[in-house]
Amino acid sequence: MTPAEPSTRAEDTMYIPSFDDVCAAHERVAPWIHRTPVLTSSTFDRMTGAELLFKCENFQKAGAFKARGATNAVFSLDENEAERGVATHSSGNHALSLSRAAQCRGIPCTVVMPHTAPQAKMDAVRGYGGEIVTCEPSLEARERTLNSIIAESGANFVHPYNDHRVIAGQGTCAREFLDQAGPLDALIAPIGGGGMISGSSLTCANVSPSTRVYAGEPTQADDAWRSFRAGEIIEDDAPDTIADGLRVSLRPLTWHFVSNYVSDVLLATEDEIVDAMRLVWQRMKIVIEPSSAVALAALFNNPDLFAGKRVGVIVTGGNVDLDKLPWMRGA
Amino acid sequence: MTPAEPSTRAEDTMYIPSFDDVCAAHERVAPWIHRTPVLTSSTFDRMTGAELLFKCENFQKAGAFKARGATNAVFSLDENEAERGVATHSSGNHALSLSRAAQCRGIPCTVVMPHTAPQAKMDAVRGYGGEIVTCEPSLEARERTLNSIIAESGANFVHPYNDHRVIAGQGTCAREFLDQAGPLDALIAPIGGGGMISGSSLTCANVSPSTRVYAGEPTQADDAWRSFRAGEIIEDDAPDTIADGLRVSLRPLTWHFVSNYVSDVLLATEDEIVDAMRLVWQRMKIVIEPSSAVALAALFNNPDLFAGKRVGVIVTGGNVDLDKLPWMRGA
Repeated sequence: MTPAEPSTRAEDTMYIPSFDDVCAAHERVAPWIHRTPVLTSSTFDRMTGAELLFKCENFQKAGAFKARGATNAVFSLDENEAERGVATHSSGNHALSLSRAAQCRGIPCTVVMPHTAPQAKMDAVRGYGGEIVTCEPSLEARERTLNSIIAESGANFVHPYNDHRVIAGQGTCAREFLDQAGPLDALIAPIGGGGMISGSSLTCANVSPSTRVYAGEPTQADDAWRSFRAGEIIEDDAPDTIADGLRVSLRPLTWHFVSNYVSDVLLATEDEIVDAMRLVWQRMKIVIEPSSAVALAALFNNPDLFAGKRVGVIVTGGNVDLDKLPWMRGA
Repeated sequence: MTPAEPSTRAEDTMYIPSFDDVCAAHERVAPWIHRTPVLTSSTFDRMTGAELLFKCENFQKAGAFKARGATNAVFSLDENEAERGVATHSSGNHALSLSRAAQCRGIPCTVVMPHTAPQAKMDAVRGYGGEIVTCEPSLEARERTLNSIIAESGANFVHPYNDHRVIAGQGTCAREFLDQAGPLDALIAPIGGGGMISGSSLTCANVSPSTRVYAGEPTQADDAWRSFRAGEIIEDDAPDTIADGLRVSLRPLTWHFVSNYVSDVLLATEDEIVDAMRLVWQRMKIVIEPSSAVALAALFNNPDLFAGKRVGVIVTGGNVDLDKLPWMRGA
């Protein structure tokens, strides 16, 4: 699933970000992102017997928490680096967020996408000023294309999650959340590559060590669940889940945080994810994407773990295709 | 459209609520309702050249601002009145809100609905403990049924909008909004029967007289627009609009406020309403019902009126059937 990546990648140095990095990131990104609100729901409190607080990163700039890490990476660059621009591979929220962050700084952003990516996603990236370079839908083609862009332009590669600047940026979410919500017994967020979970773990370990961090994962993309139990990274073989933000595997930097700080990885099936997503739309009146619903669905599956607790739920994003909702016939 | 109503109706006395009534209502309902958040959207600011602030009553208890007026009416009753319960006719948000308010106070609530009302709406009312009495889908049957309930039980009739307690309750929304948002040049809300617009006008006239109040209305249910221009109540003849909360006509009490305090009534077509609704879901990531989108659509239609202004938009509710979204094929 995850082959060798361009040699400019941050993990080569395996610099593990500190909480100081999170604080510096927060100061750096604050002018460019939203301090998103925290919502509550008496319905979900009743259903779970817990006191739930929802951090609404679906209201974040570009529609997802990814704005935090991408913005931190872009504004961490010195002037020389910045003028050569940034580049990444992603057909999801990271591509949007990096394009937007680059637009905020006025530097170029190149996104490598398979030519099979939905037109709507390409349009959204272009809407934020990103330049798209398409490639064949294979990992080899993606690598090669990204490498040649970097070789030619000197652009800085910003990996969607295995990048210390990105993780420090994502850590600003839990920092805000604890500030807004007060003490939390537990915090749960979905896990794909592990950027949000890594940043959240880092912040909780420093600001609120008694807060247990849980990761929610689709049963059909359970690489983090298996890795957590095996004690080493196990990559997914072509995971297929409606939670399209969670189809990627852990990498060394995120594995560091998952293996050291996470209390458990909890699973949810596809039906449970869709049911939770729909229930949030219906009762909380907010638009969340399937990946975001995974955390709540996983929480529902483990009532004993959370009943009587004060639990923070990170609602990671709200970018959905309104014409293809999972409960629509034929969607 | 609007025949004689049960003789217990509040309009018989035509008591015009004052701002003191709004303040008393606010204290009365505060423990039972949400102080809903105010959101902004750089997308919509860019589109309109205005600074828009959205008061999110879609996050209100029972999913709509109607919780304010209904709760005020229920908690205004003295002990003797209260034990005989409340009754109303509505198949919409007022029915939900009155049932919930009665449940909060622990008193009975009877709702008269045509037997043709959607099962989902009936289930929702029952979910809040309301008792449904069905009748034939005619105004005469509705009248007769409600009158006999009131005669038998002595229940207090709470009209969906032509009731001073309800109007005073709806006025708490603008009071919170001005407190949260600061000075507003204009405030816009949808208009059906006029309860929200009346309460908003009442509050603005007392707290912020320089704030101009606008009402947004579907072109296909333009009775308020025609009334405003004619200088007298003109009732709609079977209006047909997707904004199902706005199919009712003004009544004497709401006409008092509309005719005296509203700057203008602005129209939007069905397509404009659906487009605005979808755009809000897509960009703001909140679920709003068609009636709520009418205000924004009407605002879009009058750019010169709002450009450069600080404008409050009341997002009135978020109760939609997720299986029948207006942009779905065959919906």
